[in-house]
Amino acid sequence: MSRLARLLPATGWLRQYTSAEFNSDLIAAAVVTVMLIPQSLAYAMLAGAPPVMGLYASILPLVAYALFGSSRTLSVGPVAIVSLMTATAVGQVVEPGSAEYISATITLALLSGVMMLLMGLLRFGMLANLLSHPVVAGFITASSIIIVLSQLKHILGISAQGENAFALTADLLANITATNLSTLCVGGFALAFLFWARKGLSPLLEAAGLSTANASRLAKAGPVLAVIVTTLAAWMLELDQRAVALVGAIPAGLPSLSLPTFEVNQWRELAGAALLISIIGYVESVSVGKTLAAKRGQRIDANQELIGLGAANVASAVSGGIPVTGGFSRSVVNFEAGAATQMASILTAIGIGLAALLLTPYLAYLPKATLAAAIIVAISSLIDLSSIKRAWLYSKSDFIAVATTIGITLGLGVELGVICGVVASIALHLHKTSQPHIAVVGEVPGTEHFRNVERHRVITTPRIVTLRIDESLYFANVSFVEDKIYAILAENPEVEHIILMCTAINEIDLSALEVLESVNERIRELGADLHLSEVKGPVMDALKKTDFLDKLTGKVYLSQHQAIAELEIATPSVYFP
Amino acid sequence: MSRLARLLPATGWLRQYTSAEFNSDLIAAAVVTVMLIPQSLAYAMLAGAPPVMGLYASILPLVAYALFGSSRTLSVGPVAIVSLMTATAVGQVVEPGSAEYISATITLALLSGVMMLLMGLLRFGMLANLLSHPVVAGFITASSIIIVLSQLKHILGISAQGENAFALTADLLANITATNLSTLCVGGFALAFLFWARKGLSPLLEAAGLSTANASRLAKAGPVLAVIVTTLAAWMLELDQRAVALVGAIPAGLPSLSLPTFEVNQWRELAGAALLISIIGYVESVSVGKTLAAKRGQRIDANQELIGLGAANVASAVSGGIPVTGGFSRSVVNFEAGAATQMASILTAIGIGLAALLLTPYLAYLPKATLAAAIIVAISSLIDLSSIKRAWLYSKSDFIAVATTIGITLGLGVELGVICGVVASIALHLHKTSQPHIAVVGEVPGTEHFRNVERHRVITTPRIVTLRIDESLYFANVSFVEDKIYAILAENPEVEHIILMCTAINEIDLSALEVLESVNERIRELGADLHLSEVKGPVMDALKKTDFLDKLTGKVYLSQHQAIAELEIATPSVYFP
Repeated sequence: MSRLARLLPATGWLRQYTSAEFNSDLIAAAVVTVMLIPQSLAYAMLAGAPPVMGLYASILPLVAYALFGSSRTLSVGPVAIVSLMTATAVGQVVEPGSAEYISATITLALLSGVMMLLMGLLRFGMLANLLSHPVVAGFITASSIIIVLSQLKHILGISAQGENAFALTADLLANITATNLSTLCVGGFALAFLFWARKGLSPLLEAAGLSTANASRLAKAGPVLAVIVTTLAAWMLELDQRAVALVGAIPAGLPSLSLPTFEVNQWRELAGAALLISIIGYVESVSVGKTLAAKRGQRIDANQELIGLGAANVASAVSGGIPVTGGFSRSVVNFEAGAATQMASILTAIGIGLAALLLTPYLAYLPKATLAAAIIVAISSLIDLSSIKRAWLYSKSDFIAVATTIGITLGLGVELGVICGVVASIALHLHKTSQPHIAVVGEVPGTEHFRNVERHRVITTPRIVTLRIDESLYFANVSFVEDKIYAILAENPEVEHIILMCTAINEIDLSALEVLESVNERIRELGADLHLSEVKGPVMDALKKTDFLDKLTGKVYLSQHQAIAELEIATPSVYFP
Repeated sequence: MSRLARLLPATGWLRQYTSAEFNSDLIAAAVVTVMLIPQSLAYAMLAGAPPVMGLYASILPLVAYALFGSSRTLSVGPVAIVSLMTATAVGQVVEPGSAEYISATITLALLSGVMMLLMGLLRFGMLANLLSHPVVAGFITASSIIIVLSQLKHILGISAQGENAFALTADLLANITATNLSTLCVGGFALAFLFWARKGLSPLLEAAGLSTANASRLAKAGPVLAVIVTTLAAWMLELDQRAVALVGAIPAGLPSLSLPTFEVNQWRELAGAALLISIIGYVESVSVGKTLAAKRGQRIDANQELIGLGAANVASAVSGGIPVTGGFSRSVVNFEAGAATQMASILTAIGIGLAALLLTPYLAYLPKATLAAAIIVAISSLIDLSSIKRAWLYSKSDFIAVATTIGITLGLGVELGVICGVVASIALHLHKTSQPHIAVVGEVPGTEHFRNVERHRVITTPRIVTLRIDESLYFANVSFVEDKIYAILAENPEVEHIILMCTAINEIDLSALEVLESVNERIRELGADLHLSEVKGPVMDALKKTDFLDKLTGKVYLSQHQAIAELEIATPSVYFP
């Protein structure tokens, strides 16, 4: 692959681009544009920013990702969880609703874009591996609950605040008697219609004579329909007179390119949040990108994805938009609507650009309640409590990680939630590997195979004890392993040969090497020999760099079977147990 | 073991205590007392506290550990590294030399004592496992360098300060022209004498007719000799008139029992440092305790050690002492002088008590330079750069951990040094396990043994690919493993059976299970089957709790040999390579 093709994956598909692909991409772009117009306004509102910033974040960023990203079908733009994190991060630094809020949001997009670019260039994509699936699932579920709670005030036409999900719920309940009925009518209608439309619109369109595919595509226009109907209603019924909150005047036209402000202090205050947004945005995007690529036998390149998403965020910042990433549901719609290449995203960007030019005057009467309903309906499908149950059934430590993530996210916020989730999974992993399973093994009769004496009927001899340590030996578990070996020695006073069967030992670090040296010495003092069997190539390479093998009282055997065959000559076999 | 015997290990040896043991313990106590008098004064000075607090920390804490600790030969009391950490921690909170400094030091002892007790009762001793040997070695070396640097000003009779080792060195050099020659004479004499005494005193005493054992014991009196000589010199030559810094009046008598002050703010400020001191103190103590116990075939109980050391620190706090732990060199001396039980420590406490009652008036003329020399000589043997070289030769990641620890400890202080060392070792461990070694394996001819095709001459068939993943499958490495499996699949288009040989897989967490499910699905779509072989008991138990085994397209084989034997029927064998 040439350097250009690696840096600009778009050159790959552009070179052999066909008119059939263009037709597919055009249809997908139309579907996604119709879906993205209300989404971009809504997610900007969720981020606490003016709605037009959502439109701006849906033009240049799509083009930037189309050029630099490695997924052919990912739909980049504003997404719910990144918008929530944006609102949290920017709200901690400047007053919500102020002019500084806009510039801080743009700064956040720039920072997270630059961080993604750096992580991609330095091949730091592996950082995302620290987020386990249960932590991600728990984080998405808890964030979605917070998002739904945060939008309920728009549906009810009340004000409600709270530093965490519980305080927010309490404040909603405290103010619920102040509900504005006109707002509730609009919001309730939009909610009911959108929930119905998700399942009910497509069959209705089919019954009206459309093909299944076209019906499914047109059904994505549900939110746009809700926007049109409620905007018209607000205009005709003069709902602003009834205190229904409306979006208000949106400046028409395309975004003007500009450089974000350089305020070192603000950069420092936003840096931590930008890093978290980069990582969470990347994980969300790459997981859907991978899934879709696998379905068509394509591959995506993790580090190139960081570069594509980083470019998209920088593009969003210089055109006055909010932080963006690859959206889950929108990418699936793009894929299913037939998008063949990122040309679909470029065409979508043109569509949103036209909307910004032509449609904005008509959106002044759009009720905020409609956007809130669109957010709630889109996000509610992400609330997935089954992952908690699954973790509970499969592994208690995965359960603790997911429960920690959900609990802290709901109680202390998204940033602490994801940090504590990661810390908890690492701590639990270290805890598990610090107390490895250690089995005394014997030969399965008639084979060269050795298994745990407590689980299988195997042959052993009292003067040879073989231990299989089911873990790499490293600093966190050496003292446990040392204690266990000494305990087993104490139980087997007749032992003459101790064999460490190293099938599961993938690494011996320096702490472990020092412990093995003292174990070897101790066993020698007891008059026995220490042998190793089935040592893996990389481990053996490392041991050869030291004098451990010279000091080892016994030998190193290629296979456990050989070890027993050679050491057994002096000692008769007996069945165990 | 009864509950009493578990809580108070002393009841074990007290019940069968013999007069022969008493005689041994008495000799050891005499040797350790003579060693501990100057050490306790010196380490109190190192901690920035009045020298008498070192004596107080050498009475009740020894009795408390004797009752609750599980090591028979550990010598608890002031130690250099904990004193350095005390000076750092308390100096950040209150003005050095002030009355508050004393109360804050006592509070720190209390806090770390309570933390050790809690960790012991909650069985959190495993926390110490996070400190790898290279990190501990690096930390001790760097701390020792800082201690030597911090004491040089007393030898030179100048003042020097610095936030880190480099700044301290710079300040020493800047002020070196102000060296007080009288002080330098005292300090230089003490240094020279003590360095010589370490090796030279014992042969001299033997030549004078003492037995080797007695000569070796008496040689431990070197520091006391230096104290006597330089104190007499200071008194007779009126060195205080020549601006030689002296210890000054030390209150005579035993410590009075008192409760530390309760200032919640100060507790909060000292809590982090107290936790670090607890962990470092515990690690230092338990490593020497383990080594000595192993030499006599005894065992020590990690959690009981925490309780013993916690009790010692609480005892130090209530009697006005500084934080304590088990000292390395002193414990070795205690052991080699013949200490049989903790009665030696109780007798040492009595010795120090007598010293506090009778000797303190004579110590007013003791030059600080003598104490500094005693510290430098004691600590210089701990500076061990060979561990860095060893880490470099054996494993680059151990080297990075030790280099990080030393660099940050010297440059940014002891607290950040140990924290960064731990974080670096965990990060490096995660990094290594996130990119596991994955081998394609084949059968070693004439055996049932399977090894890496790239390292051994083995038999394979093109339609069966066996992968051995040399790591547990968990969140940090699943995406790497997934990519690798798909890459190997792409290289082997003819494959019909993929066998995952699970000898080295000790755990499959929920993230990994979900990836295996999608790999199984993907392989099915390619028209091949996924099999597992040699799955360990605990892993199989976990998989059985899910529907993974039902969905698995292939089978689970007890041994890799069975798997190949059964699957090979349809496909002929060929030699590889």
